[in-house]
Amino acid sequence: MTEQLIGWVAVDAGGTSTRTVVVDPTGRCLGYAVAGSGNPIAVGPEAAAASVAQSVRHALGEAEVPSARIRQVVLAMAGAGSTSVAPEIRHRLAGIGLDAPLVFESDLLATYFSGTHLPDGYAVVAGTGAGAIRVEDGRQVAVADGLGWLLGDEGSGFWIGQRVVRAALADLDGRGPSTALTPLMLARLGVPAPSDDGDRKPILAVVRALYASPPVRLADYAGLVFEVAGDRTADDILDEAAATLARTLTAVRSPTVSGPMVLGGGILGRGRQLADRLATAADAGEVHTVADGAVGVCVLTLRHAGTYVDTAVFQRLTTSLATLR
Amino acid sequence: MTEQLIGWVAVDAGGTSTRTVVVDPTGRCLGYAVAGSGNPIAVGPEAAAASVAQSVRHALGEAEVPSARIRQVVLAMAGAGSTSVAPEIRHRLAGIGLDAPLVFESDLLATYFSGTHLPDGYAVVAGTGAGAIRVEDGRQVAVADGLGWLLGDEGSGFWIGQRVVRAALADLDGRGPSTALTPLMLARLGVPAPSDDGDRKPILAVVRALYASPPVRLADYAGLVFEVAGDRTADDILDEAAATLARTLTAVRSPTVSGPMVLGGGILGRGRQLADRLATAADAGEVHTVADGAVGVCVLTLRHAGTYVDTAVFQRLTTSLATLR
Repeated sequence: MTEQLIGWVAVDAGGTSTRTVVVDPTGRCLGYAVAGSGNPIAVGPEAAAASVAQSVRHALGEAEVPSARIRQVVLAMAGAGSTSVAPEIRHRLAGIGLDAPLVFESDLLATYFSGTHLPDGYAVVAGTGAGAIRVEDGRQVAVADGLGWLLGDEGSGFWIGQRVVRAALADLDGRGPSTALTPLMLARLGVPAPSDDGDRKPILAVVRALYASPPVRLADYAGLVFEVAGDRTADDILDEAAATLARTLTAVRSPTVSGPMVLGGGILGRGRQLADRLATAADAGEVHTVADGAVGVCVLTLRHAGTYVDTAVFQRLTTSLATLR
Repeated sequence: MTEQLIGWVAVDAGGTSTRTVVVDPTGRCLGYAVAGSGNPIAVGPEAAAASVAQSVRHALGEAEVPSARIRQVVLAMAGAGSTSVAPEIRHRLAGIGLDAPLVFESDLLATYFSGTHLPDGYAVVAGTGAGAIRVEDGRQVAVADGLGWLLGDEGSGFWIGQRVVRAALADLDGRGPSTALTPLMLARLGVPAPSDDGDRKPILAVVRALYASPPVRLADYAGLVFEVAGDRTADDILDEAAATLARTLTAVRSPTVSGPMVLGGGILGRGRQLADRLATAADAGEVHTVADGAVGVCVLTLRHAGTYVDTAVFQRLTTSLATLR
């Protein structure tokens, strides 16, 4: 640690986890830490703010940069949550001695800049939620979906997870086809398989267990769809998810902007099954798949710091962050 | 009011409203009253129990039968809620001087017996929730769905209402086709139409308003689907609802039981559009459509009272209840 060292804090607050990077103005990542869900809609403003503060504290500790030398905190978060959670986050950051200005950025834009530093293109995100944006001149100029688990987020982790659970229950209930998803769901919940055709105890046990958690937690069952290769029901769910994400992308497309296209979020970032389907459905050219928005929120942070992010700086960001992860 | 008069209280507690009938052992309905939602999953156990007590109090008042002369209270309610809400209901009924034994019956069976007194057949219910049963020898011997808004209730008011709202939002968002449902939804919520193509204020206003209510209240938007005759999106939703209800019925069908088939609940009871589709999809013979389970819970109550319900008693029930409604 030198006396001249100053840093910026970049936070990527997602539905499943929150990632914080401490970065210097040249694009060198100095510290990195992960905490729990930072999405106030998923876990409430208190828990979301606590995740942000925890990951910031650990990242600052790793970077060995004192809080007083942090110039700004840039936080990428799903749009709907930002205003309600801002006071709580400021309060929590002050609690760890961090009084630097707090700026919110779009989580979708952070995902975009995790895949490219080019100023024009598209991002499609499917994590717990889902949405798409068009980026022109480095700004998010159009957005589609991102309307949350009850009203939108089509093709998201929640959307897939709910279909997985409904398909398994329909199988148990005799309303739907037999699927390999059913034993996986029962095992995950620790519910014994039915003893005979008329045994409804497993159905009632599953229903009781799932209604006891917040609805959005059905996203936890999305991963099962990737574990049953060749299962017809699972394939149908993935095909429909890709088609609906392609529709969301179409809603933001413009004939004057061709690409690149960045695919991100815990669902699109997981394996190739969904990303490949989407790239095919969308007839995409240059495609980058990213796990999260950590690199991108650093790009947005450097912009606030007055650093122009060219190929070299972008390279430094991704390389130095990779060594910390 | 004669000194010999005794009565039974029959309660049909639904997701939208609660109906109470005071009935004598010959099948003559003496009093009838309606209150709000009696479904503990939809409105919580306190509010559900309050609706039950309110409708019972008013029905007793109309019947002019003192509480002390009520032999039993029979309450038809969606299965999942009954055990959790029983103490609260007993407490509320005691508060209006009613200490008669309380018995729970299936709301689906009450719907069945609202359409027929025959001991073998089927019922399909689509109100706020949805499910199907097979009845043999007067007992509910098989059930499908009825798993609640998050995990099942396919083809229900919630299921349709959520599709209505999602379709309207997709229309506004450029992700889905234009539909006549959109202006109806905006008008219902008092949200102005978008000023131009890029105006996302209506979307955000709708999202804010709908997340402020319990999710199950999306069922309130199901009715819009009946108000836009010829709209492609609305027709698709109704076709899919009928197909999914037909699948639910298929899950309880037995080759040894042919009918009749009773269709009930606020959604299937509303107009002919959905009921006709379902009757066609299910290739049904004798079909009765009923508005609710009020007559049926009286049939179940008479059974508890030791009265055999034949054609004449069933006729007396339906005729005398009709004069009170």
